[in-house]
Amino acid sequence: MNYTSIKDIDSLSDWVFDAIKIKKNPLKNKKLGKNKTLGLLFFNPSLRTRLSTQKAAQNLGMNIMVMNFTNEGWTLEFEEGAIMNSGASEHIKEAAKVVSQYCDIIAIRAFAELKNKDVDNSEMVLNGFLKYASVPIVNMESATGHPLQSLADAITMQEYKTKHKPKVVLSWAPHPKALPQAVVNSFIEMMQLQEANFVITHPKGYELNPEIVKNSNVEYNQDKAFENADFIYAKNWSNYNDYGEITNSDPNWTITAKKMQLTNKAKFMHCLPVRRNVIVSDEVLDSENSIVIEQANNRTYAAQLVLQKILENEK
Amino acid sequence: MNYTSIKDIDSLSDWVFDAIKIKKNPLKNKKLGKNKTLGLLFFNPSLRTRLSTQKAAQNLGMNIMVMNFTNEGWTLEFEEGAIMNSGASEHIKEAAKVVSQYCDIIAIRAFAELKNKDVDNSEMVLNGFLKYASVPIVNMESATGHPLQSLADAITMQEYKTKHKPKVVLSWAPHPKALPQAVVNSFIEMMQLQEANFVITHPKGYELNPEIVKNSNVEYNQDKAFENADFIYAKNWSNYNDYGEITNSDPNWTITAKKMQLTNKAKFMHCLPVRRNVIVSDEVLDSENSIVIEQANNRTYAAQLVLQKILENEK
Amino acid sequence: MNYTSIKDIDSLSDWVFDAIKIKKNPLKNKKLGKNKTLGLLFFNPSLRTRLSTQKAAQNLGMNIMVMNFTNEGWTLEFEEGAIMNSGASEHIKEAAKVVSQYCDIIAIRAFAELKNKDVDNSEMVLNGFLKYASVPIVNMESATGHPLQSLADAITMQEYKTKHKPKVVLSWAPHPKALPQAVVNSFIEMMQLQEANFVITHPKGYELNPEIVKNSNVEYNQDKAFENADFIYAKNWSNYNDYGEITNSDPNWTITAKKMQLTNKAKFMHCLPVRRNVIVSDEVLDSENSIVIEQANNRTYAAQLVLQKILENEK
Repeated sequence: MNYTSIKDIDSLSDWVFDAIKIKKNPLKNKKLGKNKTLGLLFFNPSLRTRLSTQKAAQNLGMNIMVMNFTNEGWTLEFEEGAIMNSGASEHIKEAAKVVSQYCDIIAIRAFAELKNKDVDNSEMVLNGFLKYASVPIVNMESATGHPLQSLADAITMQEYKTKHKPKVVLSWAPHPKALPQAVVNSFIEMMQLQEANFVITHPKGYELNPEIVKNSNVEYNQDKAFENADFIYAKNWSNYNDYGEITNSDPNWTITAKKMQLTNKAKFMHCLPVRRNVIVSDEVLDSENSIVIEQANNRTYAAQLVLQKILENEK
Repeated sequence: MNYTSIKDIDSLSDWVFDAIKIKKNPLKNKKLGKNKTLGLLFFNPSLRTRLSTQKAAQNLGMNIMVMNFTNEGWTLEFEEGAIMNSGASEHIKEAAKVVSQYCDIIAIRAFAELKNKDVDNSEMVLNGFLKYASVPIVNMESATGHPLQSLADAITMQEYKTKHKPKVVLSWAPHPKALPQAVVNSFIEMMQLQEANFVITHPKGYELNPEIVKNSNVEYNQDKAFENADFIYAKNWSNYNDYGEITNSDPNWTITAKKMQLTNKAKFMHCLPVRRNVIVSDEVLDSENSIVIEQANNRTYAAQLVLQKILENEK
Repeated sequence: MNYTSIKDIDSLSDWVFDAIKIKKNPLKNKKLGKNKTLGLLFFNPSLRTRLSTQKAAQNLGMNIMVMNFTNEGWTLEFEEGAIMNSGASEHIKEAAKVVSQYCDIIAIRAFAELKNKDVDNSEMVLNGFLKYASVPIVNMESATGHPLQSLADAITMQEYKTKHKPKVVLSWAPHPKALPQAVVNSFIEMMQLQEANFVITHPKGYELNPEIVKNSNVEYNQDKAFENADFIYAKNWSNYNDYGEITNSDPNWTITAKKMQLTNKAKFMHCLPVRRNVIVSDEVLDSENSIVIEQANNRTYAAQLVLQKILENEK
């Protein structure tokens, strides 16, 4: 069993229910991971993902080995048949097979480079490990998805929702740097598994991958989208069509208190890290309707559920 | 309970006594930290502090998560109300609150930048965590203090002193790089809690923060200061008045065997790392009166006492 | 007891036998390392060595502290009597003594710099720790040796050999970067402890240190060397005479399927990381006769045997 995409969730409602049970008694399965080793492989920076996944593994009694490929290890080659006479020192074939011998589960973070859409969509790093590793793989944010984040988001919405079918708005917001679409891709896929009035709002031209958006509602008027919303989920992404470009930085898309007044006292969500007063104003982020900290807290229980399912499955 | 300054010590003699007890049986409280997590956050390099604090936490049975903000995480913003449209990716408000959810105690190392006295005195990083974290904070050397070091120094002096009220001399010594005042600040504050004949000696112009020095003796003649000393504590600091500048590099201030002959066979102390033959000559550092290695050893028990007090306090 | 060289092995056949026993039941000695701490000090990148040594220590129940000197710690000085008024912040004398107080065993990786043969042969870092540390030292690849790798190689050959005295060929192969001789040095020393028909093959001019090669067979004709070989061990090294230079990059030395046909269906070995289609062709590395992954797996049991011997010796 791997957890590399929202598609790996067989029943979202069951998973959310089980994660909330874990949250109430996180040390209950302290023996499940005894003498099992989780390898955390980072090709990019991380704070929440790194610490919450470690915490989850500790709660399960696992050993943890952290490896930063940026400064501790060897540069990897991913191309089949490559003649490795420059840059990379080691091929993914060997790296994945070798690490599989020291770890019982491998978790990987490897962001989109945002230079070439096809390369990013090919999920070179994640799929390289999936293909060649002999142990389960967990996605700690890949080029096109961040399913641990979206599972934590689902847990958080379950905790805070006050009606069966809330209105959930995913809103683009400006950002000074070009960011991947990974978080929003997984969020959309997760929302498509729920009963909800789900609306995506973004400037014209910022359309996401149609294979992910499918028939989800898109509303180009942010104000209209916000009307009666129960949850506002803010996130920047760079242009998917002019791939990796920043073609809009309109501050009118920043989430402000005035915009939140259009909603049904909506809860404010963001995956963090968040640029204050660029993505969202201080007054919104510091308001009692902001649930970003609890959302980050739930990262632990999302990761713990995934690790627990894998460990139980491998027994 | 936090440990961010010497001011957090309620009774230095009790703390030193308890630390020496821990040193005799370091694994006695192996169960106290069970299922508790210590987060070590580094904004600067570390050898002794990193390893001794880990060792202390292991002796208490704690889990440990290490995070290097320089290369593993996100750049942090500390200014209230900042419009985060450049450099920093995450505000201390979120970082501190989020890390508090994964850790039971947070220890932080964030040096002075020595560019702006007011900025360094504001203890931006440490105070940011103190303000926004929801768990106890431990100072692993901040802009203006290094209280774990000074607690280890107090333990070491207790072990080696042969009279009730020894003469303790803190001596400036030259150094090729501009260094913070953190170590000496905490050392002075610690000495002010003890019965001792305490003298600070440094070149004219190298006066430290008067709010810390208070009425401690300052003697500009190093030879005179050394007379009959029982402990020589050497340390460089950069100019506090011409803030962060090196205005003196006089090799006559180097601690040599000849200078040590002026003392009462004084023990030689330094917090390490130390520049040999710049701060102190080989013959002094390699002599039997040098106690710098035992001083470093006591870092473990200083840290363990602090962690133990926090864990007991949180129960 | 230290493990810094193949010379530290008292009986290779006993060690290989014991390591294979550990491999069958790796958790048998889970209590041996309880409350013992292994410090892993890296001056260079590492994947296999880092993870397999951690895994070995975990199997023995040890605590592990990892320290990257490249970005986490202080630059070290190794010269006796140095006046430390530039670069390095800390002398090996203090670093080694201090780390010895926090760790029960210290393992070190410090590669050859390939700039000065005498400097590399002096094993400055490894010997610095050997001289000043007060706890056992393990070599995780030094300037001139990699004895954990060669012990794993011996284990692997024992597992795969089908005759008492196999023909083992160590073959040079081309590589775009100048590499140290450490792996081959230890391999040769290890082979000299075995009954085998051992042949070294490399281009003229690539002669290794005669004090290591001694009377081992050298055959400059690679094809001839390969005849009837049972094991081909490929590895690049830079020129030892034109020290650290690449004076040959002849692709005819690459290990290909055609060359392997000259052998007695030889097993293919390499320490990894390996440059595909430069050192060895894909068809060889992906063939069933390639045992490089099992060779990497045995790194864990080589390290575990060494740590176990040290722990037992220190009891």
